[in-house]
Amino acid sequence: MTLADIGGTSSGGVDRQALSAEEIEAWRCVMGWAREADLQVATDDAGNLFVILRGSDQKAPPVLSGSHLDTQPGGGRFDGAYGVLAALEVLTVLAERGVKPCRDLIAVAWMNEEGSRFAPGMMGSEAYAGVRTLEEIRAARDATGMTVGKALDQLHAAFPGLPRRPLGAPLGAYLEAHIEQGPVLEAQRRVVGIVTGIQGKQTLEVEVRGDKGHAGTLAMSARRDALAAFARIASALYTEIGDHDPQVKFTIGHLCVEPNAPSIVPDRVVMRIDLRHPDNSTLTALGARLRVLCARHATPCQVQLMPLVDAPSNIFDTLLQELIETAAFRLGYPSLRLLSAAGHDARHLASLCPSAMIFIPCRGGVSHVQEEWAEPEHVSAGANVLLNVLFQLVRPI
Amino acid sequence: MTLADIGGTSSGGVDRQALSAEEIEAWRCVMGWAREADLQVATDDAGNLFVILRGSDQKAPPVLSGSHLDTQPGGGRFDGAYGVLAALEVLTVLAERGVKPCRDLIAVAWMNEEGSRFAPGMMGSEAYAGVRTLEEIRAARDATGMTVGKALDQLHAAFPGLPRRPLGAPLGAYLEAHIEQGPVLEAQRRVVGIVTGIQGKQTLEVEVRGDKGHAGTLAMSARRDALAAFARIASALYTEIGDHDPQVKFTIGHLCVEPNAPSIVPDRVVMRIDLRHPDNSTLTALGARLRVLCARHATPCQVQLMPLVDAPSNIFDTLLQELIETAAFRLGYPSLRLLSAAGHDARHLASLCPSAMIFIPCRGGVSHVQEEWAEPEHVSAGANVLLNVLFQLVRPI
Repeated sequence: MTLADIGGTSSGGVDRQALSAEEIEAWRCVMGWAREADLQVATDDAGNLFVILRGSDQKAPPVLSGSHLDTQPGGGRFDGAYGVLAALEVLTVLAERGVKPCRDLIAVAWMNEEGSRFAPGMMGSEAYAGVRTLEEIRAARDATGMTVGKALDQLHAAFPGLPRRPLGAPLGAYLEAHIEQGPVLEAQRRVVGIVTGIQGKQTLEVEVRGDKGHAGTLAMSARRDALAAFARIASALYTEIGDHDPQVKFTIGHLCVEPNAPSIVPDRVVMRIDLRHPDNSTLTALGARLRVLCARHATPCQVQLMPLVDAPSNIFDTLLQELIETAAFRLGYPSLRLLSAAGHDARHLASLCPSAMIFIPCRGGVSHVQEEWAEPEHVSAGANVLLNVLFQLVRPI
Repeated sequence: MTLADIGGTSSGGVDRQALSAEEIEAWRCVMGWAREADLQVATDDAGNLFVILRGSDQKAPPVLSGSHLDTQPGGGRFDGAYGVLAALEVLTVLAERGVKPCRDLIAVAWMNEEGSRFAPGMMGSEAYAGVRTLEEIRAARDATGMTVGKALDQLHAAFPGLPRRPLGAPLGAYLEAHIEQGPVLEAQRRVVGIVTGIQGKQTLEVEVRGDKGHAGTLAMSARRDALAAFARIASALYTEIGDHDPQVKFTIGHLCVEPNAPSIVPDRVVMRIDLRHPDNSTLTALGARLRVLCARHATPCQVQLMPLVDAPSNIFDTLLQELIETAAFRLGYPSLRLLSAAGHDARHLASLCPSAMIFIPCRGGVSHVQEEWAEPEHVSAGANVLLNVLFQLVRPI
């Protein structure tokens, strides 16, 4: 709740954008708690924040746990922040009890998971995992034209002398705690979700091009109306793709119409498509079908598709899943295996080291809104499971 | 071409929005030409611009001719500007020859015909004809929230001391010259169009309301996706209304999607529908059918329709049509009677006094685009016919 005050809105939500003054203040807050617990802090060139409990073997790859401190524009108090603070709490408890782990145990806050100020998101984990180069990430701009590079330099300048860890250094394991952002745990009255993987996703930009014309004089038969073509394409997509099976998620969230004037036939429509499915072969097939439908229904306009994201479903480390399930059982928390419908930094870490996620329920399954809420007993249950699993991974030999 | 430089775009088009700094500059330009010709200038409370050639009988209702100086965004050089400058040229020619008309002959530029910055358009002629109150018109806002009232006050402040004519003062006749904005004159190789009337038009705003949701987690069956409902509604309208018969014109030119974020299911879509048909009973029937289709295809979202314009086809004064036809014949210009597919200020003037319109061809029939073009010989032919007819209406006794 203290962290939620930083960027807190009058309606109880949080607006704490990546690399903003609010995020810098959130770093100060987290670093203050870390130093109170005699933990060390560091960063890297991608603006990730690390809190370190030193282990006995400095050659062994460290174990990481965390999430992110940035939020959506009218976001909530738990998305991201929970995973960072749960990991910090685990380190604090171990440090207070004088536990010296067999290798470094590190809490992490990844830079710009949400992607709302600088798109696309997950920049910190992508840079760490080598999915995108730092140069590419530094070149991205926010709505005011400010680059990630400049904002990153400002962040680092706010913390002079902070040690820097190398990007992509080997890791022993990664564990992320997070609110579910969906209704399953609440509906089934479970306290802990063992996340089996992250649902596959394709994001595309589709541009329809036609010709402008006067709404009163241009004959319908002579028109190349880009919005009419959009309506045909979208109707076909909602029906054939969106109704394909109960697991598919198909969304056109963003649309741009030009010239968008009441009495002019539109000549350009650009839409952003978000397509998700847990089964990779189905996702691939639907993505291919989507292209066919766009081409077929665009006539007499022209259509062009640009893939932005093509991320198949991934499967989290099965041994870590077992450890989470066992810990939940031993601590008496009813649990459930489930796929994450939303994306998380853990997707990218999974390419570097054994990775997994722990979900806790959120009220009504809602997230990215000011009403986002998790019950205190669920918050502590998730942290207890995290402590239990992390302790097994770094237990002194 | 001088006027087209004001708000001129690099691609040869014109972007001169109603009550903008560019329109104020256009006023200065036209007023400069008027004063060079010893003509008087005035305005009224609705921001219409009048250039006056004083007549001998100040009690006789004046004869008006003109059009408008505002353009669509990405508009052309002739739409509106031609009618204002043709009328100004007639006044200039008569003044240069020392003609003292039997009553005032006035060139007019009506405020905001296009309706692209402040919707809906034809505000100046509507205020003059009493179709809408000045209060209602002053309350309309542009995309930045600026009211017509404030913009009008800025316009008037830019020309302190400019005399004001009373809104709605009686008129003897109104004549408007304009490019056709359609392909008929060019296709049939005619130089002058005698406009018989203006095609009927209905304009509606349709609002679709659903619920927001996370694109990755909310099941398709649980969604109330406002953009999906729009796609269903629009597809049905394009098919049933737009393809009804070869004379119908159906356009969705303006669309607003909220929150318009890539990974959020949209909860609100507002569209602007423009429906035109020369036959009034067909127009009425299509308007009723449109409402049924919106309601049927909105489910599970809610839909609300707000009629903005419901204007049946009108018939211009038959005596004025005869005068135009005779003038064209005597001057040797091949002519044709035709219905205007586009709306014009003359529609509203027709309720106050005998009114008519003169069309000239435009290249390819295209308008509201930067390529809009009229041949110089057609431009002067239309002005010659206008001079001939206006002279008969104000000939010294």
